Amino acid sequence: MIISVIGGGDPPPEAEVLAEEVGRELAKRGAMVACGGLGGVMAAVCRGAKSAGGTTIGILPGVDHNTANQWVDIPICTGIGYARNSIVVLTGHAVIAVDGAYGTLSEIGHALGSDIPVIGLETWRLSLNGTADGRIIRAGSPVEAVEKALEAARERDEARRR
Amino acid sequence: MIISVIGGGDPPPEAEVLAEEVGRELAKRGAMVACGGLGGVMAAVCRGAKSAGGTTIGILPGVDHNTANQWVDIPICTGIGYARNSIVVLTGHAVIAVDGAYGTLSEIGHALGSDIPVIGLETWRLSLNGTADGRIIRAGSPVEAVEKALEAARERDEARRR
Amino acid sequence: MIISVIGGGDPPPEAEVLAEEVGRELAKRGAMVACGGLGGVMAAVCRGAKSAGGTTIGILPGVDHNTANQWVDIPICTGIGYARNSIVVLTGHAVIAVDGAYGTLSEIGHALGSDIPVIGLETWRLSLNGTADGRIIRAGSPVEAVEKALEAARERDEARRR
Amino acid sequence: MIISVIGGGDPPPEAEVLAEEVGRELAKRGAMVACGGLGGVMAAVCRGAKSAGGTTIGILPGVDHNTANQWVDIPICTGIGYARNSIVVLTGHAVIAVDGAYGTLSEIGHALGSDIPVIGLETWRLSLNGTADGRIIRAGSPVEAVEKALEAARERDEARRR
Repeated sequence: MIISVIGGGDPPPEAEVLAEEVGRELAKRGAMVACGGLGGVMAAVCRGAKSAGGTTIGILPGVDHNTANQWVDIPICTGIGYARNSIVVLTGHAVIAVDGAYGTLSEIGHALGSDIPVIGLETWRLSLNGTADGRIIRAGSPVEAVEKALEAARERDEARRR
Repeated sequence: MIISVIGGGDPPPEAEVLAEEVGRELAKRGAMVACGGLGGVMAAVCRGAKSAGGTTIGILPGVDHNTANQWVDIPICTGIGYARNSIVVLTGHAVIAVDGAYGTLSEIGHALGSDIPVIGLETWRLSLNGTADGRIIRAGSPVEAVEKALEAARERDEARRR
Repeated sequence: MIISVIGGGDPPPEAEVLAEEVGRELAKRGAMVACGGLGGVMAAVCRGAKSAGGTTIGILPGVDHNTANQWVDIPICTGIGYARNSIVVLTGHAVIAVDGAYGTLSEIGHALGSDIPVIGLETWRLSLNGTADGRIIRAGSPVEAVEKALEAARERDEARRR
Repeated sequence: MIISVIGGGDPPPEAEVLAEEVGRELAKRGAMVACGGLGGVMAAVCRGAKSAGGTTIGILPGVDHNTANQWVDIPICTGIGYARNSIVVLTGHAVIAVDGAYGTLSEIGHALGSDIPVIGLETWRLSLNGTADGRIIRAGSPVEAVEKALEAARERDEARRR
């Protein structure tokens, strides 16, 4: 199972703490972590995953393996810039969004548009014509986010096989 | 000047009316229209632009020119699926969002992340940690959206040249 | 009908002469020209097309409209780097290759892999295990290349409709 | 070190034998294998790598993890179709081409255009205007291909750091 974790490259310190715990809890449960491979939330989630012996995939915008943060095991050099955001979410069986920059917003849009479950941890809230959009599954803590992501990923996988 | 118009493929009828007027007003002012090339808001904006003698660009997800709606002059076959959303916004000097599906949300994220002005007409509203995000420039009518888009595009172009 | 013209950014002078004539002959016959939008063969073919009143599409690797050569009417900002090469060929109903850099080689591969006809004018020759590959349709002059491209595009279009 | 192995999805049996040995020899030397994740040469190289305890990355054209061959450890769902070919080669520190379809040709073009070393094992031969192109480094056996790929990758990495 691969869970994609998305979030900004320059987040507030609290978001990095959350992301690191998300990475650690995913690794403890045997899930691989995919992310955009750079700094901020991306580095924090990889650092957390490696601290618990996990495997990390960094889907980079550029062509240079060395731009990956030091906790990335598998650097994927896409060379397609921010268009790689859709690959980040498609590679996950579910997505956890932590805080959020505009790139994270694009990833949430790509995920929801492809019916990939999105778990939100202090991330964007959306409304359209005055109605709140309820498609992002809210979590109150990293452990809750991880458990909800794994459950949603399993349910989606079962639905696909049926 | 190219203005990208984004919005869902299966919108409420009011959104199609708005999009058609956006297309017509853009064409009257000499701006080209870029969009995702398919139906719904995309077809409506192209229809409007053609009714006023404009030029329309359809940036398609697939490989078949014939999937473009009938009002597209220039079909671009990307073959990259929804990852083409980032190309739709990058090709515009500014973006007008009408109503909105999740694909539209991804496009808003890509545009704001690349500092491309986004004008919103009954589209997504965003908030983060309880604070409303003010980066989408709101418009109350198609004419206002078109005028704000052209103004924002000109300002950005001038800032770039400086 | 859109014909994509591919070739290097820094070709020998003879290739630019050929490309310019290809552009002019395409425009005379009412075909639009698509290309990678930059210099060398790409600029020459656009210059030729504009000299005969044609329409030119430049599918750019980057995000800045101003990187297009001055004869591009419709700049498409992909932001996906050289991965845009596959979009250049998919957007054409047929492809004319003039001379060739390694990017051109990638485009020939993408085109042949997608059953898009490729007309070659002093471009790459290919062989596999000692056998020459005959899929590139050879032309001895720009006029011959243009006529063969338009014929192949029409045949493919008819085959698709059947 | 990641070595990308490219080749067709429906190759002659001899090519699968070569690819499987390439995978095994890469794994023995501690290199990860990246490929397009599907069948034919892609499945054979992954099978070989897994038989020697290696790690395999499958960079898929589509959005479904289950389209990866059964020997892929890390499926990357790009959703961008054949445009993913450029990601396959950019992710490798060097590339080994075995036999070859037109997709392989596009990958060779992308690799050479980005100065990524390409080792050829019974693959395409190229010539331009009557002159053979010498940029593909030829190997006579899987072991030779693997050793040349690792050497070229190391040299490139050192040159980059300088």
